[in-house]
Amino acid sequence: MLTVNRLDLADAQAMIAAAWARAEHMGVPTCLAVTDESGTLIAFERMDGAKTIGVSIAIDKAFTATGTRKATHELSPAVQPGAPAFGLTSAHGGRMMVLAGGVPVLVDGVVIGGIGASTGTSTGTSTGTPDQDREVAEAGVKAFTAPA
Amino acid sequence: MLTVNRLDLADAQAMIAAAWARAEHMGVPTCLAVTDESGTLIAFERMDGAKTIGVSIAIDKAFTATGTRKATHELSPAVQPGAPAFGLTSAHGGRMMVLAGGVPVLVDGVVIGGIGASTGTSTGTSTGTPDQDREVAEAGVKAFTAPA
Amino acid sequence: MLTVNRLDLADAQAMIAAAWARAEHMGVPTCLAVTDESGTLIAFERMDGAKTIGVSIAIDKAFTATGTRKATHELSPAVQPGAPAFGLTSAHGGRMMVLAGGVPVLVDGVVIGGIGASTGTSTGTSTGTPDQDREVAEAGVKAFTAPA
Amino acid sequence: MLTVNRLDLADAQAMIAAAWARAEHMGVPTCLAVTDESGTLIAFERMDGAKTIGVSIAIDKAFTATGTRKATHELSPAVQPGAPAFGLTSAHGGRMMVLAGGVPVLVDGVVIGGIGASTGTSTGTSTGTPDQDREVAEAGVKAFTAPA
Repeated sequence: MLTVNRLDLADAQAMIAAAWARAEHMGVPTCLAVTDESGTLIAFERMDGAKTIGVSIAIDKAFTATGTRKATHELSPAVQPGAPAFGLTSAHGGRMMVLAGGVPVLVDGVVIGGIGASTGTSTGTSTGTPDQDREVAEAGVKAFTAPA
Repeated sequence: MLTVNRLDLADAQAMIAAAWARAEHMGVPTCLAVTDESGTLIAFERMDGAKTIGVSIAIDKAFTATGTRKATHELSPAVQPGAPAFGLTSAHGGRMMVLAGGVPVLVDGVVIGGIGASTGTSTGTSTGTPDQDREVAEAGVKAFTAPA
Repeated sequence: MLTVNRLDLADAQAMIAAAWARAEHMGVPTCLAVTDESGTLIAFERMDGAKTIGVSIAIDKAFTATGTRKATHELSPAVQPGAPAFGLTSAHGGRMMVLAGGVPVLVDGVVIGGIGASTGTSTGTSTGTPDQDREVAEAGVKAFTAPA
Repeated sequence: MLTVNRLDLADAQAMIAAAWARAEHMGVPTCLAVTDESGTLIAFERMDGAKTIGVSIAIDKAFTATGTRKATHELSPAVQPGAPAFGLTSAHGGRMMVLAGGVPVLVDGVVIGGIGASTGTSTGTSTGTPDQDREVAEAGVKAFTAPA
């Protein structure tokens, strides 16, 4: 029998709150998702005005970061044409996301969950970018404090 | 009526055991899958600590190697941008895997099944690569001995 | 942060071996799957002669038993026409299995994984039934011994 | 290593021709599919005027008959509400067809493939029924002659 650690709901809520604050400050309505270490969703919030297409993308970014134990932007070079992992993006029915915005949560090198952010705005005045998604997701991860 | 040969469960178990030993020696917890010549799963093992994302990727590598009768790394050049089979990766709901780590089992040039490996480690200090997956999968194939 | 227990590969192998022995004794080639507490596959074996259709059904029975924390046959009354959970079977792309043959593994009332069995025989003289699947799956669960 | 028998293309063509003749005689344009023993399609024909919805249904009837080793109409009682296999229809993404019109091909009790028929007509004067599908599929099976 294995014993594993994973994010709980309070962790997920704290992470989403911090990511939410960052996205709000940037003026970019964002979809925010936190998964446990198995890639299963714990919490999700779509800020008013966020693009509907971001719902599944945020969830899949968290799923990918958790499952690969890497930030999604770190995967990008390895899946470019000619690179060793080219073709990975079609796995899991296309759920593998290699755009910036997914970040795993690691404790002592072991994954316990992940967060994904996918931006968008219905106003059209400030369209979110993957770099903004990454900034938002990383703000969420910083809100997690591993037990001493 | 056709008469075809395919791996049986004992073959699959021997292949997984050999692949397991190689992955263990490398210190890389790996997901291991063997399919019959129709691409249907015969046996699967997820080593403790292997990335959860590797479960379906290992199965799909075996499926792809069996169905194309080529090692998955051999498919990669043909599916690059501009190459004749570019776009193939989305087939079968994205199950076509062209990363190294899937190898067919051929007897006298006829496919009788395949093996797929997808790596991962919970420590983060030794991240598995597609090349390692290929080495593990090939170790599995070597464990199969065709009847005389 | 939560700390959870889950089946490891050795547990899964012991469970499959015990289920395998029961199915062999009954003369019914069976597909056998064990999932961890998140419903992710740990190990799978298809006995020679088992129906190919049983591959995904065995995996999905383990997934359903784990995810609902009930044996799949216990779910059946609740999903009958007119019952409160009628319609549940289409969830998860139809992966919700309410036929007998999926059993969760519980330790102190907490789910740590599950096993699924789906039968078949190539002779046609002894067709497996869901009751046989249940017997096989329960034999597998009995092989698991929780740590003291 | 296992050695298995399966329908070849000539077998499939003969079966479809016989099924086609029966459907033509009945005046019911029909979709006709033959799969090998693993459930993989060998041949398919859609008669002019057949309903488009019959394409996947015919293929799935052949898939189901092959995978369960039973005619699809034989499965129907077992999957009714309250019956032991209730809920089976959602398996394999809903591909499990229990309407009449799918028939396995057995040689000495071992499945080597199957045929599926799904009727329809664009004229509206003679709408096909599952009983007609069964008659058409059975005509196809009769066209198969096992080697002596």
